[in-house]
Amino acid sequence: MKLLSFVSPTRASFGVVDGDRVIDMGVRLGATCPDLKGALQGGALERIERLAAGAPADYRLDEIRFLPLMPNPGKIVCVGLNYVAHRAEGGHKTESPAPVIFLRVPESQVGHGQPMLCPRESHQFDFEAELAVVIGKAGRRIAEADAMSYIAGISCYNDGSVRDWQLQTPQWSPGKNFPATGAFGPWLVTPDEVDPVRSLRLSCRLNGETMQDTTTDLMMFPIPKLISFISTWTTLEVGDVIVTGTPGGVGLRRNPQVWMKHGDVVEIELEGVGVLRNPIVKEGPAV
Amino acid sequence: MKLLSFVSPTRASFGVVDGDRVIDMGVRLGATCPDLKGALQGGALERIERLAAGAPADYRLDEIRFLPLMPNPGKIVCVGLNYVAHRAEGGHKTESPAPVIFLRVPESQVGHGQPMLCPRESHQFDFEAELAVVIGKAGRRIAEADAMSYIAGISCYNDGSVRDWQLQTPQWSPGKNFPATGAFGPWLVTPDEVDPVRSLRLSCRLNGETMQDTTTDLMMFPIPKLISFISTWTTLEVGDVIVTGTPGGVGLRRNPQVWMKHGDVVEIELEGVGVLRNPIVKEGPAV
Repeated sequence: MKLLSFVSPTRASFGVVDGDRVIDMGVRLGATCPDLKGALQGGALERIERLAAGAPADYRLDEIRFLPLMPNPGKIVCVGLNYVAHRAEGGHKTESPAPVIFLRVPESQVGHGQPMLCPRESHQFDFEAELAVVIGKAGRRIAEADAMSYIAGISCYNDGSVRDWQLQTPQWSPGKNFPATGAFGPWLVTPDEVDPVRSLRLSCRLNGETMQDTTTDLMMFPIPKLISFISTWTTLEVGDVIVTGTPGGVGLRRNPQVWMKHGDVVEIELEGVGVLRNPIVKEGPAV
Repeated sequence: MKLLSFVSPTRASFGVVDGDRVIDMGVRLGATCPDLKGALQGGALERIERLAAGAPADYRLDEIRFLPLMPNPGKIVCVGLNYVAHRAEGGHKTESPAPVIFLRVPESQVGHGQPMLCPRESHQFDFEAELAVVIGKAGRRIAEADAMSYIAGISCYNDGSVRDWQLQTPQWSPGKNFPATGAFGPWLVTPDEVDPVRSLRLSCRLNGETMQDTTTDLMMFPIPKLISFISTWTTLEVGDVIVTGTPGGVGLRRNPQVWMKHGDVVEIELEGVGVLRNPIVKEGPAV
């Protein structure tokens, strides 16, 4: 099943994607499940699958506006330097005793098709293709062997990074949290449709040119290890998001460097999920 | 005015502190203001002040359980290395081009009087006395000169740090986000009572012995600068918290090192606010 968060012509909702059709589940489930997080919290996925089977479409995909797949996660835990090729291009040691972790705030996110914003304070706006995991069951100190049962599904993430603000001190938070820099979607694909831990091809294209291209089996800390590690120091809650790190090829490390500019189109493609596509908009000067 | 978040014998609420009396505002304001964040969002402080004047007490302070002052902030933005003495003791350069920023998740917090938890995975549990600012008005790209009008008030914060998990990679998030490590309270003091930007004495005592002792005029990046900087890369929302950094004297940098142990009592005192006191509890082994 593919699930998405969206704004219909009239209101924010969530639903099921079937080809180019959208079946609105906010309308069908009412106040008990106001959004995708609520549906996951309520354990409503089986009911949603039954309701969606054979239901008439409410919208076509081109009639809705995509929201960030999880607009309101409790937390977004991002993994840095999780592919050797990306470590090597930045001059980092190719080993690490633990995953490198930073956090994003939900209001830094943006949906599929919506503009990713290069802030007026920078021109160093970089792409990062990543696989995102959405948590479907709460847990603490989860064993690697049990991790799969905590996954609601996977999607694409573009962890857009404002490099000069990321690297002005040793802690990265500012450059990872500008509004509308983290693109998330287009939809959640549940594990029955794509196994989250099998090797999936992950790539980034900028204006059609391939910038990053890897397979997810090259993660240094694979998804079960990440779930186990993160849940050691925080309780993973339903709807939380883990963004699992980017492979080599980022704009910062190219020669010459490549930055996303106004009018560019950036695409993250994850095998079994689809394409997350965003235009780049450069914020205007202060008025 | 002093405001707090608490659990009465029957339910979570918020209210006004007057000496050792608590006036329950959740009861008086009902569903429109379910909590302190809601009261700030609703601009209800003047109304609360009128309602509290001469109102009978609902509880004594010793009858309630303190919640983290803001149990549900949208984000908690923490500043690292914001006092020269703390930079110097760690061997960091005593200048920085920008504030060092990391994020805490709300579920890492704990209220005044409640146990701060040393996780079973570590024995390196350290104290950090800090002044916390609560945001009272939303804003982006706030000028330093305007910053004061965005402050709802200040309180004490103990940014309890699990050092081995903080420092295992260059990004600090894991060691700053274990559950019940960030103590916040006891109450919010509004600017009419204490000017947030005047020099205030800030100290930490462990079992009565002074470990940290500074004045807040020694911040490298003062509060208006922090508000201006942070609001450049994220929208500050009502109820957001800025934790402004710790002075010298942390346990990590002492010789011999000092860690908080089961049965210890740690106190953060901020002039004009009061004392945030927490017992330390070491988590038991897995059962």
